[in-house]
Amino acid sequence: MHFTSDQHLDDGVRERAFSLGGIPGILWTPASASAPTPLILLGPPPLGLGKVYPRLVARARHAAADGFATATIELPGSGERPRWPAAEQARAELRRALKAGEPVSDEIIDSVILPLVDKAVPEWRAALDDLLALPEISGPVGYSGGVISIGVRLAVVEPRIVAAGLFAGSFVPRAMFEEARRVTIPLHVLLQWDDEGNDRRAALDLFDAFGSQEKSLHAHLGGHTGVPQYAGEAAAQFFTRHLK
Amino acid sequence: MHFTSDQHLDDGVRERAFSLGGIPGILWTPASASAPTPLILLGPPPLGLGKVYPRLVARARHAAADGFATATIELPGSGERPRWPAAEQARAELRRALKAGEPVSDEIIDSVILPLVDKAVPEWRAALDDLLALPEISGPVGYSGGVISIGVRLAVVEPRIVAAGLFAGSFVPRAMFEEARRVTIPLHVLLQWDDEGNDRRAALDLFDAFGSQEKSLHAHLGGHTGVPQYAGEAAAQFFTRHLK
Repeated sequence: MHFTSDQHLDDGVRERAFSLGGIPGILWTPASASAPTPLILLGPPPLGLGKVYPRLVARARHAAADGFATATIELPGSGERPRWPAAEQARAELRRALKAGEPVSDEIIDSVILPLVDKAVPEWRAALDDLLALPEISGPVGYSGGVISIGVRLAVVEPRIVAAGLFAGSFVPRAMFEEARRVTIPLHVLLQWDDEGNDRRAALDLFDAFGSQEKSLHAHLGGHTGVPQYAGEAAAQFFTRHLK
Repeated sequence: MHFTSDQHLDDGVRERAFSLGGIPGILWTPASASAPTPLILLGPPPLGLGKVYPRLVARARHAAADGFATATIELPGSGERPRWPAAEQARAELRRALKAGEPVSDEIIDSVILPLVDKAVPEWRAALDDLLALPEISGPVGYSGGVISIGVRLAVVEPRIVAAGLFAGSFVPRAMFEEARRVTIPLHVLLQWDDEGNDRRAALDLFDAFGSQEKSLHAHLGGHTGVPQYAGEAAAQFFTRHLK
């Protein structure tokens, strides 16, 4: 991992862009921190970091104010990263089905999500290796948001992640329900009750499947992008309880 | 309404027992308050105020620390209040069905809950008349907890209640789903995911039915009495957002 830019944002947040073997990423740290801080990995939606930067930096500022470092990396096939034809075709089919108001088949969901999870999770673990090697970051580590299936897989395979805030805002392959049963870390799950691009029933079933002894579901009225501001406060309190 | 006792609890909370035409009640106010305060009505479970006093006073202390007065009254047929045979029989049938692990019929649910709602709601409204006449209470008014169907009916018929924190912890008659659609005030709904004495599916359907533009569901792992302490914090923040 090498840093490609370094700047201080107005409110005492240090923002460094980095490249992890060609994968673009961003690290935010509280400039005022006198000791190494816990880390929250910010899972981005698969739209490209450029597009979602405003949302990410808002979460990073909030986390920095709470004393957390945050970091994110570009997902495979998003932003400037190379596409792969199968994923492009699967995404096109998903968009078509949603536009036509048709039920989204398990085949489409699997072909969109599973390769993304398989490619992304090792990259996030590699990023974690390098981020935890920085003197200003001590852990513990939380994972927040993004594609929920990536969060589920990370919660199962990455022991350094001790708590996860998940956003039930993307379709979930059947296979992930089995993995969900193996999740044991505390979970804070957000659900937008009327999420256009999501299956509420499946989201509730996934919450039910999680093996964690501490899990809470926070459902709010509204669509995919309508998460109320106070929901962010509750998620921040969850990470403060588990990472401090 | 006349007061029957008046004491100051150790942490600056004034507790007054009262009688409202023979109905026992308790009022808690922040002793330090320099101005009239908002009020949160604490709906009790139908077990008798004596039995649930420890839980109620804990909520009252928390609310007082946030600058709220709280009050509760004994439900019809609970505590020292006269029973009525139909309710006793219905409750007995409910207990029998639960004990036998049988599905609870709509008939049983209706016969337990509907008469209770019909009797209790006018009493809560009468209590509200007298409580808001006290110089130390200004409103606005919130309703919190207790039998959810009573909270739903109050939210529909009592315009002085501007926000409600409901606990989806008791069976809901079909008829209440219609009333739920007419609820428009902000709602904060608690659900214990594995509540023994409750139907999760029906609780989710009820949340879906509420007509409110702001509603959020907070579901936590555990049984009826397993509400985590941080859930109380979130509910307190809800009332602070809407009553301050």
